[in-house]
Amino acid sequence: MATFADIGLAAGINILTALVFLIAFAILRLQPINDRVYFPKWYLKGLRSSPTHSGAFVTKFVNMDWRSYIRFLNWVPDALKMPEPELIDHAGLDSAVYLRIYLLGLKIFVPVALLAWAILVPVNWTNNTLAVSKATDRLQYSNIDKLSISNIAHGSPRFWTHIVMAYAFTFWTCFTLRKEYETVANMRLHFLASERRRPDQFSVLVRNVPPDNDETVTESVEHFFLVNHPDTYLTHQVVINANKLAKLVKEKKSKQNWLDYYQIKYSRNQSTRPVAKTGFLGLCGEKVDAIDYQTAEIERLSKEIAEERERVKTDPKCIMPAAFVSFKTRWGAAVCAQTQQSRNPTLWLTEWASEPRDVYWDNLAIPYVSLSIRRLIIAVAFFFLTFFFIIPVTIVQSFANVEGIEKRAPFLRPIIEVPFIKSLIQGVLPGIALKIFLIVLPSILMMMSKVEGYLSISSLERRAAMRYYIFNFINVFLVSVVAGTALEQLDSFLKMSANEIPEIIGVAIPMKATFFITYVMVDGWAGVAGEILRIKPLVIFHLKNFFLVKTEKDREAAMDPGSIGFNTGEPQIQLYFLLGLVYAVVTPIFLPFILVFFALAYIVFRHQIINVYNQEYESAAAFWPSVHGRIISALVFSQLVLMGLMSTKGNARFTPILIVLPVLTIFFHRFCKGRYEPAFVRYPLQEAMMKDTLERAREPNLNLKGYLQDAYIHPVFKNDDDDDDYEDNFNGKSDDNVLVPTKRQSRRNTPAPSKMSGASSPSLPDVVPEEL
Amino acid sequence: MATFADIGLAAGINILTALVFLIAFAILRLQPINDRVYFPKWYLKGLRSSPTHSGAFVTKFVNMDWRSYIRFLNWVPDALKMPEPELIDHAGLDSAVYLRIYLLGLKIFVPVALLAWAILVPVNWTNNTLAVSKATDRLQYSNIDKLSISNIAHGSPRFWTHIVMAYAFTFWTCFTLRKEYETVANMRLHFLASERRRPDQFSVLVRNVPPDNDETVTESVEHFFLVNHPDTYLTHQVVINANKLAKLVKEKKSKQNWLDYYQIKYSRNQSTRPVAKTGFLGLCGEKVDAIDYQTAEIERLSKEIAEERERVKTDPKCIMPAAFVSFKTRWGAAVCAQTQQSRNPTLWLTEWASEPRDVYWDNLAIPYVSLSIRRLIIAVAFFFLTFFFIIPVTIVQSFANVEGIEKRAPFLRPIIEVPFIKSLIQGVLPGIALKIFLIVLPSILMMMSKVEGYLSISSLERRAAMRYYIFNFINVFLVSVVAGTALEQLDSFLKMSANEIPEIIGVAIPMKATFFITYVMVDGWAGVAGEILRIKPLVIFHLKNFFLVKTEKDREAAMDPGSIGFNTGEPQIQLYFLLGLVYAVVTPIFLPFILVFFALAYIVFRHQIINVYNQEYESAAAFWPSVHGRIISALVFSQLVLMGLMSTKGNARFTPILIVLPVLTIFFHRFCKGRYEPAFVRYPLQEAMMKDTLERAREPNLNLKGYLQDAYIHPVFKNDDDDDDYEDNFNGKSDDNVLVPTKRQSRRNTPAPSKMSGASSPSLPDVVPEEL
Repeated sequence: MATFADIGLAAGINILTALVFLIAFAILRLQPINDRVYFPKWYLKGLRSSPTHSGAFVTKFVNMDWRSYIRFLNWVPDALKMPEPELIDHAGLDSAVYLRIYLLGLKIFVPVALLAWAILVPVNWTNNTLAVSKATDRLQYSNIDKLSISNIAHGSPRFWTHIVMAYAFTFWTCFTLRKEYETVANMRLHFLASERRRPDQFSVLVRNVPPDNDETVTESVEHFFLVNHPDTYLTHQVVINANKLAKLVKEKKSKQNWLDYYQIKYSRNQSTRPVAKTGFLGLCGEKVDAIDYQTAEIERLSKEIAEERERVKTDPKCIMPAAFVSFKTRWGAAVCAQTQQSRNPTLWLTEWASEPRDVYWDNLAIPYVSLSIRRLIIAVAFFFLTFFFIIPVTIVQSFANVEGIEKRAPFLRPIIEVPFIKSLIQGVLPGIALKIFLIVLPSILMMMSKVEGYLSISSLERRAAMRYYIFNFINVFLVSVVAGTALEQLDSFLKMSANEIPEIIGVAIPMKATFFITYVMVDGWAGVAGEILRIKPLVIFHLKNFFLVKTEKDREAAMDPGSIGFNTGEPQIQLYFLLGLVYAVVTPIFLPFILVFFALAYIVFRHQIINVYNQEYESAAAFWPSVHGRIISALVFSQLVLMGLMSTKGNARFTPILIVLPVLTIFFHRFCKGRYEPAFVRYPLQEAMMKDTLERAREPNLNLKGYLQDAYIHPVFKNDDDDDDYEDNFNGKSDDNVLVPTKRQSRRNTPAPSKMSGASSPSLPDVVPEEL
Repeated sequence: MATFADIGLAAGINILTALVFLIAFAILRLQPINDRVYFPKWYLKGLRSSPTHSGAFVTKFVNMDWRSYIRFLNWVPDALKMPEPELIDHAGLDSAVYLRIYLLGLKIFVPVALLAWAILVPVNWTNNTLAVSKATDRLQYSNIDKLSISNIAHGSPRFWTHIVMAYAFTFWTCFTLRKEYETVANMRLHFLASERRRPDQFSVLVRNVPPDNDETVTESVEHFFLVNHPDTYLTHQVVINANKLAKLVKEKKSKQNWLDYYQIKYSRNQSTRPVAKTGFLGLCGEKVDAIDYQTAEIERLSKEIAEERERVKTDPKCIMPAAFVSFKTRWGAAVCAQTQQSRNPTLWLTEWASEPRDVYWDNLAIPYVSLSIRRLIIAVAFFFLTFFFIIPVTIVQSFANVEGIEKRAPFLRPIIEVPFIKSLIQGVLPGIALKIFLIVLPSILMMMSKVEGYLSISSLERRAAMRYYIFNFINVFLVSVVAGTALEQLDSFLKMSANEIPEIIGVAIPMKATFFITYVMVDGWAGVAGEILRIKPLVIFHLKNFFLVKTEKDREAAMDPGSIGFNTGEPQIQLYFLLGLVYAVVTPIFLPFILVFFALAYIVFRHQIINVYNQEYESAAAFWPSVHGRIISALVFSQLVLMGLMSTKGNARFTPILIVLPVLTIFFHRFCKGRYEPAFVRYPLQEAMMKDTLERAREPNLNLKGYLQDAYIHPVFKNDDDDDDYEDNFNGKSDDNVLVPTKRQSRRNTPAPSKMSGASSPSLPDVVPEEL
């Protein structure tokens, strides 16, 4: 039974941690040497250049201007100042709408918190049920419980307040959700409408082109669309299976990094030429001269790449039965993407082409039947992952003890037997397998989405986010509320009636309030403050800078701006929505903690999005329907739990009143789905026609074919033929978007734009040699 | 515990009943006077005319040719002889595919029955569990139970046979379903492809046209489509709210019928002019001369109709924000129907126009928001109907006793007090409220679908069928298996765990086998045989013939061919699928009874479809996805029940093996949905383009605008302006389909085709004055 003092202590510690992080950040970001870690977005935009160009030697690395330290919290108003339209221009609609999720949290929970504290807290507090039961049953309770629903007597008429509040909260949440859905849908449509010409506006991805003995795929595609879309078909680009080529190119890049590393090492210490082992991870195998070895390897790979490139271009086996088909008008593309082409609905599947940089090339060649089998397998795999992951983790943990390590790696014995290290290992190891599992979980989920065959990075992330949310809901939320592993719970829930489950959860909810308050403070407050520090990118950047960077271009490549990380970030926010909605009626004291999280996270992520993150793709907020859907499901869950709780409080008569809530909420969801979702999955012909007409009037002599010709070539071809060409081409869109630099963005504006752009940032992490 | 003898007796009685029906039918159908009752389809097709034209007076009414009685079962081979393509020509694809549901039943259950009898029956029979338990526990059992799964000892390894069989049956069912889905999809596509020109191929229904202050609806529609479909837009027809006009016309028709009735009555008995009361149902009010009164009424109505017609045509309030838009090509219509038109996805909603005769005009004007509220209300209403219908029925029954009637209608007392009548009423009354409810239930469900706002009669029927199936599943199947009303069960199921429910049902299933065998014999065998007799239409036809018919045309109007009645017929078949699948493994002796039903029903309905039913619309088998889906859900239910049964038989270790079955079945369903369902909801552009090209080559000078101009005018306008015009126009389609009469169709072919067609048959039942 935590008291106010306990909570206060925990809050103090976490506020302190958060403050330390924020101060550390405020200091570190002012050091010129860290400039590329904390402002990479501006470098990528070409609006900021390395501070090494000017000034004294010391000031290159350390900021000696004491005045700048006084204004160390300036980043907060800076982050908030940029207006939304400019933010959309600067970072894309995805990022701007992502921030709106935090804002939505504030919009929902600020009035809910005010109402709850104005009405529910007094109603709970002025009761004396707990005091009475303390006197009679010697039941321990704390002040926090006095504020919660637990302080209301069994069957008391005061529960009417809670019912009315549940209705009020539901209506407010739905009202806000609807308004937000409308806003986001309009933002999306406006964004799409105001965009300059982009290849994906004219293009459709066609899959499952049926094989034809007399025609090649490209002939077959051309004939089909010439016949069935005679007025609008323009050109097409067949998809080539260049996965092996891409792998070779990636390998060459990694070897090149190693070569750089050894060369720098050698140039610093010319007495000994670096040596390396050729075997697994450089740990075993024969010793060779590292520079010679890597040079030879790179040569070998270059040759192989050239061969493979030739083979891919000529071998018909590498031509996939898929193509990007481009049309003369947006109208033509919109029509083709939304209609069924062939009698057999599994052939000639058409859908909107994603942005070129959003395309996930590896999955373009998966046939239809295989797709449904893959989904089945992944669904089963995810079920087992969610409910049985604890088993392999436990097995690994049973091996990972000191004796186990000594047995398997006897050479480590002398080190391990040192008492301090031994106790350290024994203290850390038991949890480490679980920790590692949780760290790699997002990657596992991402891999699952890839196996399922989604075609764009954005849809992969959306899918992974959904799975991550479900995993969190079961293994973080439910497991914390009801004791026992997920598997045990599945077993016990299966044996319970549909009535009992909400009761069990409902009764446990108020008791776990303090646990979740602590969770919010650790994960939400300190965690978000830690996010702004960017410790990992900071360390990696400086390591790279020291070991690999030879030219200015290398330094640009060493920056790791990262991205929002929708697949991990959004499920985290959703967990807070769930907690907030569940506790709103039950334990209103919980709400301020959630509010602090939403406010802090909003500021931090706004700062990061403006200064750091470089989004890899632009899906025009295609994720909003799932965000909306998950909040709705959390709302329904909270209503069911409240129903369960009420029925154990001797208020079964409230059940019919409360059951109306989920019914209405689901109805509201269906209404929103019908009203707003089409804006996220279809493209209205009216819009397309309007843009076509405008464009025809503005640029009557546009050579669209030239523009679209190479838009959808596998990046590996563009990348290697001519690096500069590739990037120019790739950024065709952002070049179109004339970017007006504003004053507040950067201290040192450079007029010449940088060549580097976000397009290649996905491959950046791979540049790091694994052992660095 | 029913024995073989009991079942045999019941079977004997029901076979006898069925035989009596069949013989009565064989005799009645040979009487010329009944010709129009048993062969209306041929009259409507114009391939048969009244036998009254030729021959002696007596032979007009009674068949004196004794030889024809010898061949009284000839209708069976006749019904089976017509090949399927001819059947599709004759009765439409809907009817032909409807018959395939019965055939599908045979295809699934004949091999299942053979396998079950070859393997399961011996395995069950050669056990002696029941004999042992009889000896020890004095448990009663019958031979039927010896053949069922009950005869296997607790935890016996023999259950492996049942598991293997469950797998075999599932695979066979899925295999057959897939093949059938494929066949039907191909039939549908072939049907659509080989059809002649039809207005609905070129037309799209547009709803929620946004109001515009400067333009009328028709201008607004024209402008919108001229802008957004400039190359393909042809013409449009605004929907007019003529519901009141239609009501007046209907009223006039009814009055006309009464007038005819009184005139005939007067002509037969010229001594007294008929009188009638003007009040409610002719039961009260002042007495008037019936012929004069009806003539005056008709005059008044004619005047009102003329006024209303003028008003509707000019009043802008009667113009609905909806229109049928026609395109120059099928391709244009296919594009418009499948795409989103406007930014706001609730405006300019487009969908395929149904056939003109399939349109449900009353619902065309419902706005979007109202639609979702209507669905919510109906969903709640259906829930209450399903679980609480028994409450009002019981209340009505409590009033409907002899005392209650005497109290409310004292003038009936002398009749009721006659002992014979009193005991009759007391015997019949208690069940009568339930019976009446069950009779009107399909109409209630149909009304619910109408309130929900579906736009075509076919979709109304599909929706009503789904609800009827759910109602049957809960209130017939579940209530019979687990004792207690649906409401009590809902309550107890809610209190049970997810594990227990299948166990409860699974254990009860084998015990109810004999009950359901009897049910199949009464409802399936005798019921189907009764269907062919058409007692109700027979009686009504002769009544009408006697009281109303003045001209040959009246006689045609007096025929009531009826239709398949998808909304009641299909749920009945589905109940048999459910029973067959549930009992296949548990009580294989059940299967032959199901087989007899499917075979008998197939023959009977094939005969009826060829000779009697006149389908009101043609949806090109659009109902198949729901048929398929319901069989799949029955399959999954049967697997869950088997799982429950097995776990009570000490074989919980089988659960993991059995749980694979529903997972695979659901996966199979999703595969089929993706693979075949688009054929039923979308229209491939390839097809449209092919037909357009062909047509352009064949008829380059076709005046399509003239053809489509009046295709979608509210029937009330066509009907009254010029009857003949209307029908010719309406049957444009069937005139196109050149009908080649074949030898076997009819004994007396008439070369001149009749004017009458199915198009107006929907209004036929309304012609009957309520009191006849």
